[in-house]
Amino acid sequence: MTLAIHRTAAIGIDLGGTNLKLAVIDDEDRIVERLTVPTGGADGHRAVIERMVVGVGALRAAASGLDVAGIGVGVPGMLDMATGVTGDLPNLPGRWSDVPVSPAIATATGLPVGLINDAKAFAIAEQRRGAAVGAETALLATIGTGIGGAIIAHGRVLFGLGGVAGEIGHLILQPEGPRCSCGNFGCAETLASGPALVGEAARRIAQGFATSLTDLSGGDLNIITPELIARAANKGDAVAMEIIDRAGAWLGLALAGGIALIAPDVVILGGGVAPAGSRYFRAAEAMARSHSGVTEIDRIACRPAELGYDAGVIGAALWGRETAGSMKNTG
Amino acid sequence: MTLAIHRTAAIGIDLGGTNLKLAVIDDEDRIVERLTVPTGGADGHRAVIERMVVGVGALRAAASGLDVAGIGVGVPGMLDMATGVTGDLPNLPGRWSDVPVSPAIATATGLPVGLINDAKAFAIAEQRRGAAVGAETALLATIGTGIGGAIIAHGRVLFGLGGVAGEIGHLILQPEGPRCSCGNFGCAETLASGPALVGEAARRIAQGFATSLTDLSGGDLNIITPELIARAANKGDAVAMEIIDRAGAWLGLALAGGIALIAPDVVILGGGVAPAGSRYFRAAEAMARSHSGVTEIDRIACRPAELGYDAGVIGAALWGRETAGSMKNTG
Repeated sequence: MTLAIHRTAAIGIDLGGTNLKLAVIDDEDRIVERLTVPTGGADGHRAVIERMVVGVGALRAAASGLDVAGIGVGVPGMLDMATGVTGDLPNLPGRWSDVPVSPAIATATGLPVGLINDAKAFAIAEQRRGAAVGAETALLATIGTGIGGAIIAHGRVLFGLGGVAGEIGHLILQPEGPRCSCGNFGCAETLASGPALVGEAARRIAQGFATSLTDLSGGDLNIITPELIARAANKGDAVAMEIIDRAGAWLGLALAGGIALIAPDVVILGGGVAPAGSRYFRAAEAMARSHSGVTEIDRIACRPAELGYDAGVIGAALWGRETAGSMKNTG
Repeated sequence: MTLAIHRTAAIGIDLGGTNLKLAVIDDEDRIVERLTVPTGGADGHRAVIERMVVGVGALRAAASGLDVAGIGVGVPGMLDMATGVTGDLPNLPGRWSDVPVSPAIATATGLPVGLINDAKAFAIAEQRRGAAVGAETALLATIGTGIGGAIIAHGRVLFGLGGVAGEIGHLILQPEGPRCSCGNFGCAETLASGPALVGEAARRIAQGFATSLTDLSGGDLNIITPELIARAANKGDAVAMEIIDRAGAWLGLALAGGIALIAPDVVILGGGVAPAGSRYFRAAEAMARSHSGVTEIDRIACRPAELGYDAGVIGAALWGRETAGSMKNTG
């Protein structure tokens, strides 16, 4: 008798504003092949989808010993999970509303394709292998160009209507505040995201505040990044520290709202702007703890995400496998 | 052969600021006996618990043909479901922190007792028999003296850590706003509850605004109620209309936050301040729809609660039956 070694793999695609990340995970959820190419969003959604299809082909060739069951695609914004059609993806150039991403990739590759919001993919990955393992109720947020979020309830990621639950970045914290890409004013994302930090730094420099950011940026506002501001803060720059503390506090206020609503076991922060131990992370946690109104607040853990930049692509791949499984079950 | 008619009933207790409502439900969740007595919170928690125990005895005697499996007690505030001990109940007089309500009633009655937040009891009842039947994801709020809330996720009420999830009344909408009983500032409850309406009316009258409320109240601020303000608004009083519209809009902003976080199929409003078709209800719904940032917002239904004042006591009874069942299963 011959023992067939049958490994069910899956491919994840993480559609980011800058890069398109693709990876194959094996049946133990480990990345065995990966590919990163520039998204080139300015070329339009057709070109980006074509890059995804080409990337999938390259990965399947590289991982030819594996049986790829399905593909998951994580996208930064709104979507309809049931149809695999994208809605508004405000942080990507070009038009993405009503683009049938899943059907297009499924037709081109012959594989089942599941579409998922990138923050929900992040949550699935952190729940399977990262900081949310074992959580019954959890609140997750990723802070980068936008602020994504996800909720785990009754031990499972909550998708909600259309798959868009968890949008903690769109809690309105300041009804008369800055305009948000969602159309509202004063969403957490306008006050606490990477661009919020950069914008505030630009304003401070332009207003002539005494800050090392003026020299660090060489007077060029285009090269200011959250990392640059963090570097200035670490060297004791009072303006940079205040910018980070205030943005972190705004995120904390949004987290406090999420905590009041779901009373999670754990709050998990990820994304480029809130790495473990950062000043921003601490400011957010302090505000969340002091403003949630939940008597159990001391029992709630606040932890950094554990999977780093791979969380999105791993979660997307897990979703691809899930999609393939559910299609097999219902097909 | 004799057929034993064995009906599993349960008793619900709804601990309100004014009244203590008790009811027996039969195996079809219908109220078959009920009893309402003044809470008399000023007498202290021991006296109130004693009234509960006496009430349970009276109901068991009245419903002697029924087999009462357990008791559920709904309380307006914080609690620990696992231990049956109350936390802060800000809208009740006296000290309620760390009071072992469930153990006390269980000892006195010999029945299993489950403690539950009153808004979660309301949600359980509305899910079983009211406006939330069949909802996979739902956001519920009850607007009265306080603003309670609950979430249904994956088809089940979400309790969260300690059983305190769903507190939409403690979303902070105005960080520099009015002090809340939870210790924070500008919670939805401070801006949109019954007392918020009353307080704003009192201020307007004291400031000399031209409003029929001055005459309707006979100059006595003590007799202003949300109902009185609604009556003035229905007769075209511009000040009363504005008070209701603004409070409703604040609730709507909180609901918008809840919608962004859980993307529910349905939003359900209950409690004395937000009855079906009321001006307050409409103002809240309009604000929630325009400020959620969720692309699926048009697919989200907004409905009044259906069980009225009985929701709390029915939900508490259902929880009592649930508690008895889980004790039997694990005991």
